[in-house]
This record gives sequence, structure tokens and C-alpha cells, in this order.
Amino acid sequence: MEIIDGKKLSQALKAEIKTKVDAIKARGEKIPHLAAILVGHDGASETYVGHKEKACAQVGFKSTLLRFEDDISEADLIKEIHALNDNPDIDGFIVQLPLPKHFDEQKIIEAIAPEKDVDGFHPVNVGRMSLGMPAYISATPFGIMEMLKRYEIETSGKHVVVLGRSNIVGRPISLLLGQKSNPGNATVTMCHSRTKNLEAFTRQADIVIVALGIAEFLKADMIKEGAVVIDVGITRIKSDKTKSGWKLLGDVAYDEVAPKCSYITPVPGGVGPMTIVALLNNTLDAAQKKVYK
Amino acid sequence: MEIIDGKKLSQALKAEIKTKVDAIKARGEKIPHLAAILVGHDGASETYVGHKEKACAQVGFKSTLLRFEDDISEADLIKEIHALNDNPDIDGFIVQLPLPKHFDEQKIIEAIAPEKDVDGFHPVNVGRMSLGMPAYISATPFGIMEMLKRYEIETSGKHVVVLGRSNIVGRPISLLLGQKSNPGNATVTMCHSRTKNLEAFTRQADIVIVALGIAEFLKADMIKEGAVVIDVGITRIKSDKTKSGWKLLGDVAYDEVAPKCSYITPVPGGVGPMTIVALLNNTLDAAQKKVYK
Repeated sequence: MEIIDGKKLSQALKAEIKTKVDAIKARGEKIPHLAAILVGHDGASETYVGHKEKACAQVGFKSTLLRFEDDISEADLIKEIHALNDNPDIDGFIVQLPLPKHFDEQKIIEAIAPEKDVDGFHPVNVGRMSLGMPAYISATPFGIMEMLKRYEIETSGKHVVVLGRSNIVGRPISLLLGQKSNPGNATVTMCHSRTKNLEAFTRQADIVIVALGIAEFLKADMIKEGAVVIDVGITRIKSDKTKSGWKLLGDVAYDEVAPKCSYITPVPGGVGPMTIVALLNNTLDAAQKKVYK
Repeated sequence: MEIIDGKKLSQALKAEIKTKVDAIKARGEKIPHLAAILVGHDGASETYVGHKEKACAQVGFKSTLLRFEDDISEADLIKEIHALNDNPDIDGFIVQLPLPKHFDEQKIIEAIAPEKDVDGFHPVNVGRMSLGMPAYISATPFGIMEMLKRYEIETSGKHVVVLGRSNIVGRPISLLLGQKSNPGNATVTMCHSRTKNLEAFTRQADIVIVALGIAEFLKADMIKEGAVVIDVGITRIKSDKTKSGWKLLGDVAYDEVAPKCSYITPVPGGVGPMTIVALLNNTLDAAQKKVYK
């Protein structure tokens, strides 16, 4: 059994990006520039945006944070987005989600120019990905694909069972792993809350990707010996055994599942740290016009 | 065993559309108007476009055919597309595919305004469909969804196995049947040329959708008793038993498979006649601004 070390891998990938940025600087070209829009003062959002700014600094990107109070109107926020769309110095930008309730998030996402949508949430990027065209892949599916690639886990002809059909994880990773690509060429079954006899599917799987948001859902008797298990879930529960008083749990009952696996991602330190690399990678691609010419 | 009669169903759906168009006319509103661009003189394309014009007439739509010789340049064709995009009298239009080889088809498709892309091929429509947003659904997946709906075939919690991962059939129907909708809520497995032990998947399936383009691929021993079989394939072979000298075969070995099914679509007269209804339906939706406000 091998543990897929997302923390270590993300550091290696960030180092690769930094090398490319150093070369860009040495050639005197424009430094990649990521902007983030943060509305309001949600604690988790503040933390995530902080991580993103830090990661930009690590790889040598320029980053800009635009903060707005949560009483900004939808029309004004869209005006700010259009300004970023039109600003040639900004290669890509994100609007940190969730937004306060008075916003129509889909409308906000669609206001972002697809070629600057480095979160990969715009319908154009989702459609291009679905059609096998160049596109910005969103954070979690990108992170999973990189893990499979870098750990040289064979996916071609394998049976992948995905639990959870969200737009940000389950659906895109199902599409990507079924495509004519490497990683890819897998036979993918997409399971969800309406799936009957779920264990019958997971027990057949060579690779199980769990993205349900239900702590310790996947048990040892639900997988076959030697399966690869990718755990996307993250649930915070109270604990009297940690300093912080909190403990993070994945969607996999790790202690009993891990011994049965060929590869498994831990929580924390698995898929999580990989997601930020997606954003950096997409921003670099945007700066180099690799997706949109 | 019940045969799903695509011909009869498509007539019923066309009659429904005609009723709506009659009501539009009675209210003195604008009549839906579909345009088609045909480049060159490919025989099959001439036939398809002819069918589309005839179907428009049947339901009371206005239709316009724009013909160009196959030496028209890509730039000029894109100019014609932009003119249709900007023409308020045209609610929707299609560019008949395939185009002559000197065209980049993807570029042509992306030149069409998404709100007039009634073939549903533009990345924006594919992305919106994938995200569960209102979108124009392309012909074959639309036709299959309507068949399942009108024949009241339960899909929720059922295991659907899709053979073939094309952008125009396999992928979109997999996405649609996995969504929170009715028909939908199915557990979908997407199989393709790299799938190992394909029979193991098809034998578990409650519903099998075959879109491989391989004549009589699916045999009786590959499905379980009572399965629903949807045959998207169509292959023309020589025959000395028909007047025309040709015979159409589906991807299903119909004679041996049909007795084992609860429902099955024949070829011809199954999925085929349904596809044109998609185009009419999308054009009506475009005229009524049901997808894009």
C-alpha cells in the first residue's frame, strides 16, 4: 500500500511552475498575474484567498486581491469583473465562492471572460473540457488527474467508480477519466444518492473516487483488494485529542480501508493541497495563451 | 416486449409543436424561423437538409436554406454565420456537417451565437447541459430522452450502460441520464473501445444504449432478461432482398436481442426519426427565448 502524498506532490509541482516563471523573468517577458475578488469577510474564504496569494508569491506570480464589502450590488460586482476582463495586465482571475446570498453565482461566473476563468467554472470551459478541447480544468479534477499521472497509476481499461455527481468534482472527473487521454481511457461509472446497491459498484472498481461529503462513508468491505482510493471529502468534527479541538475526516474510513488499497490519498494532505496547483497551472497557461490562442 | 416506435412518436411530437405554432400564429406573434447552411453537394447532406426543410413546413415554421459552393473560404462562411447571428428574423440555424476538408469544423461551430445554436454543438451549450443549466440538447440525446419519457420507462436508480463515447451521443446522454431530472437519476457506466470485459457491464445493465457504429454488435447473450435496449447505430449494407439493393442495420442484433428485452428501438424507425424533432423543439425554444432570456 502506498500513500499518495498530495502535500509533497503539490510542492514538487509548484517548484516546476516556479522554474518556468523564473525562465519567463529571465527572458524579460510579462510575469503571470492572478487576481482574486473577495466579497465580504467569510472566515474560510479569507483563509483560502490567503493561501492563494501565498502560493502566487511562492512561484513568482504577481497577485492582486480586490476586496468588496458584502453590500456591493450585483451590477457593481459585474462592472469590476468586466474591468478585469479588459485589463491586459491580468492573465486570470477568480471570484472566491460562496458569494453572499443576494448574488446569482452563475451569473457572476458567466460574466468572467472564459479565457481568464482560471477556476474553470464558466460553461465555455466546462463545455470545452467535455468535448475534449483545450480548457481550464477546475481545481479538484485537475489535482486528481495530476496525482494519477505522477504516481503512474494505470487508468486505461480500468473501471473507475465515482461517488458523487457535483459539478465541481464528480461530473468533470468522470468525463476526464473516460476521455482518450492519459490518464483516461477508463470505463467510468458515476454513482450518486439515487444509486441502488452502491456496494455492488464500488466492489467492482479498480479505482474509487469518493466525493460525497459524508465522513468515513467508504468502508473496507465496500472495495476490492488492491483498489486505488481517492478521497475528496473533508469534514471537520470536534475532537478532544487535537490541540485545535477539531479533526478533519475524509469520505473514507481510512484506518480500515488503507490496508486493502494499492494506493490511497489521506485527509488531510491528499487531494486538498493539489487544488491550489490547478489555479497556478491555469494562470500560467493563461499567461502563455496555451488554452485560448 | 414492446417496440419503441420512433416514427409514430416523432409524428406525435411534431403534431404537438404544430399546435403550439398555430397558437403563436393565432396570437399574431413571430413565426419561428430556422435557417440551414449547406456547403457543397454531398448527397447525404442534401437529403438531411431536405428532411429538415420538410419538417419545418409540417409544423408551420419558416425555413431558409443558404447554399454555398464547396470553394467558399472559411472567412466568408464565418461572415455568413455572423450575418445570421445578427439577423433578428432568424431564431436558430444549423451548419450542415460534415463540411469540406478545408474547414475547421470546431471553429465554424464556435462562430455560431450560442442562443441560435439549435444543433446544441457549441461549447456553451455543451457546458450548460453538463452543468444542468438550460441548454439546447443535441439531436440524438434529445431523441433518446423523449423516448424514455414518453414510454414512461423508469430511469431513476437504474443502471444505464452506454456503449460509445462520442461527443454527439455517448457523452451527452451519459451526462443527461445521470442528472437530477426525469428521465435521469440513473447510475451510468460509459463504455468504449478501451473497456475490458464489456459483456460484464452490459449484462448488469437495466438499460443499454448502443452508439458504436458497428453493425449488430450487441448480441442476446450480452444483456439480461428484461433490459431496455436503445440502438443508435445505423450501417448501410448491400442486400439482394430489398428493392433498393440496400439494407439498414443497427448496432443491435435485433432478431435475437428483441425477444429478451422489455423495450427495444428498431432500426430504421427508432432513434433516427426522433432526431429531427430535437431541431424543431430547440428552434421553438429559441423563438420563445426559453433557454437564453
